[in-house]
Amino acid sequence: MPLLEKLRWRYATKKMDAQRPVPADKVERIIEAARLAPTSSGLQPYEILLVTNPEVKKRISAVAWNQQQVVDGSHLLVFAAWDNYTAERINQMFDYTNEVRGFENEGWEKYRQQLLATYPQRDAEVNFSHAARQAYIGLSAAVIAAAFEEVDSVPMEGFDPAAVDEILGLQARGLKSVVILPLGYRADAGDWLVDLPKVRRPRGQFVTEVA
Amino acid sequence: MPLLEKLRWRYATKKMDAQRPVPADKVERIIEAARLAPTSSGLQPYEILLVTNPEVKKRISAVAWNQQQVVDGSHLLVFAAWDNYTAERINQMFDYTNEVRGFENEGWEKYRQQLLATYPQRDAEVNFSHAARQAYIGLSAAVIAAAFEEVDSVPMEGFDPAAVDEILGLQARGLKSVVILPLGYRADAGDWLVDLPKVRRPRGQFVTEVA
Repeated sequence: MPLLEKLRWRYATKKMDAQRPVPADKVERIIEAARLAPTSSGLQPYEILLVTNPEVKKRISAVAWNQQQVVDGSHLLVFAAWDNYTAERINQMFDYTNEVRGFENEGWEKYRQQLLATYPQRDAEVNFSHAARQAYIGLSAAVIAAAFEEVDSVPMEGFDPAAVDEILGLQARGLKSVVILPLGYRADAGDWLVDLPKVRRPRGQFVTEVA
Repeated sequence: MPLLEKLRWRYATKKMDAQRPVPADKVERIIEAARLAPTSSGLQPYEILLVTNPEVKKRISAVAWNQQQVVDGSHLLVFAAWDNYTAERINQMFDYTNEVRGFENEGWEKYRQQLLATYPQRDAEVNFSHAARQAYIGLSAAVIAAAFEEVDSVPMEGFDPAAVDEILGLQARGLKSVVILPLGYRADAGDWLVDLPKVRRPRGQFVTEVA
């Protein structure tokens, strides 16, 4: 399966070539993979900020332990989850679904009511936590898509989310940054990880069969 | 890119063919994709339970709103995250990494100390929440891998995690179920979703460019 080859090829790139930008069509297909990825109830409760502005990348790097890939990668994807599930957000997605399909489905409408009766009443932190998990599904799809494009990427949680939210004006939009993904190409030199073997727990320590 | 075709092909299968099991080699490659997927600091803070036992699948279905795919799919993947980050778990992964690489890396050892000084001291709930997000990276990889194998899958959060933990004896192992993934083949009939168009927010409502 080509996917496994791609997963073996990719690694958390530590040093990116600042002179080699990722072509726009590749970036679009990487984003498209995230957009097509599944999410709980199809709500897609997160957005992607596509940062190419050098000044903004520099400011984000400064609140991300100065990780240089944020600056050296030509594109930075910021995955920002909904801070809460509101009736408006839920209705918007269900209405849009009806619009695309061209009809109302009774079971789907019952499901809408079920979500409306549950999600908005929950603690915002519970809802954010749930939305953040969905963003990680998109992150994973983007990482895999990047590998298919032979583009390097490195998922990063090592940043100050509140500071990134501030830089990108996310709070006013009801979003909170959860993970960022610089895209670029591995540099010719200066990456301590590139030649080391990928380490994963063996299958026996990762999988339990209940047969 | 073949990945985008696969993502368009897949859907949340509502009715699986109970008579058509997924071949073992396909299941192995799906699990391998999850195993190879990245996780924060490479800790892989989750495990997969591979359930094929019909009685166990039936019991899980009963605490999952009787969703029939849990029973009809030949294989059920249960993604179970670490309930906490402990010094033992962190050391185990760093020791194993050194063993595979055959040497100690100074930067890597400093990083180990940094995690040891941070993670085990945090609230267990914070750590579990972090570990659960990593499990979703593996889930996404498994869903995509299934599509590459032309195997249907349906990620499910609609189940009682405590009950599933009880059925699988996860608490004693320091694990908590977070999401389950039946694997199988779509049935010839009886799936209300199979012929409906996939609905995703358009790019303009999903991506903001900061250029």
